[in-house]
Amino acid sequence: MTAYADFKPLTFHDAARSFSDGNDSPRAYLERCLETISQREPVVKAFTAINETGARAAADASSARWKAGKPLSSIDGLPIAIKDLLETKDMPTEMGCAAMKGNFPKRDNAAVWALRQAGAVILAKTVTAELGGAQPGATTNPFDPRRTPGGSSSGSAAAVGANMVPAAIGTQVGGSIIRPAAYCGNFALKPTQGGINRGERLATSQSTHGPHANSLDDMWQVAIEIVKRCGGDRGAIGLMGPDKLPAAIRPDRLIVLETEGWPEADEGAKTAFAQLLRQLEAAGVTLIRRKDHPYVEALEKALGNARATCNTVTSWENRWYQRGILDNAPDGISARGQATLKRAEAMTPDDYRAGLLARQQAQLAHAAVASLADAAITLSCPGPAPVWEGDVPGQPLAPRPTGDFVFNAPSSMLFAPVVTVPLLSVGGMPVGVQLMGQQHEDARMTGLARWFAENLKRVVA
Amino acid sequence: MTAYADFKPLTFHDAARSFSDGNDSPRAYLERCLETISQREPVVKAFTAINETGARAAADASSARWKAGKPLSSIDGLPIAIKDLLETKDMPTEMGCAAMKGNFPKRDNAAVWALRQAGAVILAKTVTAELGGAQPGATTNPFDPRRTPGGSSSGSAAAVGANMVPAAIGTQVGGSIIRPAAYCGNFALKPTQGGINRGERLATSQSTHGPHANSLDDMWQVAIEIVKRCGGDRGAIGLMGPDKLPAAIRPDRLIVLETEGWPEADEGAKTAFAQLLRQLEAAGVTLIRRKDHPYVEALEKALGNARATCNTVTSWENRWYQRGILDNAPDGISARGQATLKRAEAMTPDDYRAGLLARQQAQLAHAAVASLADAAITLSCPGPAPVWEGDVPGQPLAPRPTGDFVFNAPSSMLFAPVVTVPLLSVGGMPVGVQLMGQQHEDARMTGLARWFAENLKRVVA
Repeated sequence: MTAYADFKPLTFHDAARSFSDGNDSPRAYLERCLETISQREPVVKAFTAINETGARAAADASSARWKAGKPLSSIDGLPIAIKDLLETKDMPTEMGCAAMKGNFPKRDNAAVWALRQAGAVILAKTVTAELGGAQPGATTNPFDPRRTPGGSSSGSAAAVGANMVPAAIGTQVGGSIIRPAAYCGNFALKPTQGGINRGERLATSQSTHGPHANSLDDMWQVAIEIVKRCGGDRGAIGLMGPDKLPAAIRPDRLIVLETEGWPEADEGAKTAFAQLLRQLEAAGVTLIRRKDHPYVEALEKALGNARATCNTVTSWENRWYQRGILDNAPDGISARGQATLKRAEAMTPDDYRAGLLARQQAQLAHAAVASLADAAITLSCPGPAPVWEGDVPGQPLAPRPTGDFVFNAPSSMLFAPVVTVPLLSVGGMPVGVQLMGQQHEDARMTGLARWFAENLKRVVA
Repeated sequence: MTAYADFKPLTFHDAARSFSDGNDSPRAYLERCLETISQREPVVKAFTAINETGARAAADASSARWKAGKPLSSIDGLPIAIKDLLETKDMPTEMGCAAMKGNFPKRDNAAVWALRQAGAVILAKTVTAELGGAQPGATTNPFDPRRTPGGSSSGSAAAVGANMVPAAIGTQVGGSIIRPAAYCGNFALKPTQGGINRGERLATSQSTHGPHANSLDDMWQVAIEIVKRCGGDRGAIGLMGPDKLPAAIRPDRLIVLETEGWPEADEGAKTAFAQLLRQLEAAGVTLIRRKDHPYVEALEKALGNARATCNTVTSWENRWYQRGILDNAPDGISARGQATLKRAEAMTPDDYRAGLLARQQAQLAHAAVASLADAAITLSCPGPAPVWEGDVPGQPLAPRPTGDFVFNAPSSMLFAPVVTVPLLSVGGMPVGVQLMGQQHEDARMTGLARWFAENLKRVVA
């Protein structure tokens, strides 16, 4: 375990500079990752599979390319871990689900295919909460093993937070990238809906793939190198932006969103966030709150029930797939997962349509604030990762063992791009702050996040 | 083989009336279908699997429900066949693809699940062109075995045209429901994009499920009973409309669309279509053509390259899935299928984006004509089903062995609902006429189609 105050994030973009002059190599970089894994993985438990042999071969090939001055991309040689919802041709895809044990389709998800084309080293699969839902896997928080790493991208966030890899792929439907990233001190991008090709991923109408990383450089580079090769989702233009990390953008005006989460947020996190806002004001940034403009008030109202709307939409969309799993394997889904399915099976098409309408109305309210500010800012999670030491037999199931997605449901249902920046430390644990833009403003959000990372001091509360 | 002039279509909605009074039963209805299958299937070759045992058990259960006055729906007992791209828990799903031989996931596609919930008898899987593409299966046209039934929903269209089942499920991405339906004398609905839940179906951004039937009653009933139970696609409100076949709607004004297909259409089909238009004018319907309004001209222009746009969008969206298949089974996809994949693999994300933009521009041009007329009307296919007797070894592959989708690409890329009505007979073969509406006008198009079926005489040319 590393104390968060002492955390020295492992990055790749700077190491890559030494690959061409021979002072370092992708193979040596990989070996350092494997060394860290041997130290940290027994407690962190981020991975479901590690392909050391394949990764070493890929790293050797990458080393040769760098030496020859012909890397395939700037992430050639980057060791990356893939959330175990995405198919990989060389490792099983078990989705944190007993019924999927041994599932090994031997093909790559489009994004994984693109990463290989860019020379990235597909090192490992990472623990996901069951089927991307609420039932936790074994992963612990890299800064305190009693705490959850968040979910459902538990292993991706923890692997990056433990410096076992510089970057990992997560997925988000409700809050599954940004919340664990915030709990584990990562940077992460939840792209505009459709931004990164989900390929075969059986996924819902508000699901996305996104990179977790220890730097904005690596985060952006992983995203753009994927999309340059396989584009966005079917029917979507996909992420567009510069080939390298966007330049820092200094914000003039920011909307401070409360969301449904503010009344429930941790006091320490609120205090730290308020201090960050004071830094922004001191830098000349105008903050706009719900009392300041009727459009912001309308947006807050439209997001006032975001968690329930996300649950309505998502559980309906998952029900036939999950029913198919359960019919073939009656014990193949956890009790927590089955309870969600049961709620979905009580729904009608009109219940779902009402959820879609609420989502569209919120999207209209969000579009209306576009000209008011450069972005919206809020906490990425309600506070430090909660302690989670397992369900207690005989007791009711804890509702959200991987933490609450209350601050993440808004961007998910808005299809809006979000970048989380690890700018707060509360009680010794990381807490993220997120910047949310209009659809397709992924590059702009990354540029704003860069300004944040370069110009604001981490608040310790 | 039946001459089309003598075709007496097998329907279900009227037979169902005798189920409650005991003069008929779903089991007896099923046995009549099986008898027809034993006569016709050896030549038509519509099916990849027939589950006689399961169907008889389902029909017996349905018979008991009707006898007890408690049918699950008006399609309780309807024997239906399912295109072999959709998963069914009791029959394999092989997708017309060598690499998928033996694939048997033992779960139901959402629409199949909904059909079972409504009491329909899932009787058989139907031949599809390989992976829904261009490589034909074994099916022949029920009105002339030398001719193609069309594709990719070859078996669904032929099974209905041969009276082996009263209805079947097809799918369309470019022209895979409406074209074969038109070649085989079916009614069929290609719904608004997202209209019927595709479930797990790995599918592209303009793929739909839709019913083929020998009557508008059965066509509508199958569609609405599915959607009442499992809704539309993820993110879509799904088909909405009355519980029973919509009332006939007499059109006042119709846009006559040429599309890219008119210059290539068969002379006999053009003559027959012109005669149908004269019937409409005699009934007081105003016809609006491209010369009559700049919006119609703009729409024709926007659709002038519809085939290529559909191919661009679809082949890109399929490429990772198909590459995954081929990597595992190098001979698992036909030469024709591999040629399509090769073209897709030469594309860039920007090529795809250009296709999406062309599609969106066409959708805007289509929305602009909404107030000009009740619907647009065109041929459903360029003429009678072409003769197809197989590839000739050593010769180049025929480009479109299942016929040309030139009249179908428009509604596919417009996400627009279409109903095809078997109103023309050209050289003794069926040719369909299609009504296309704005998105979500599925019920209105069905009402217009009903007026056509009830008020126009079939043209024999």
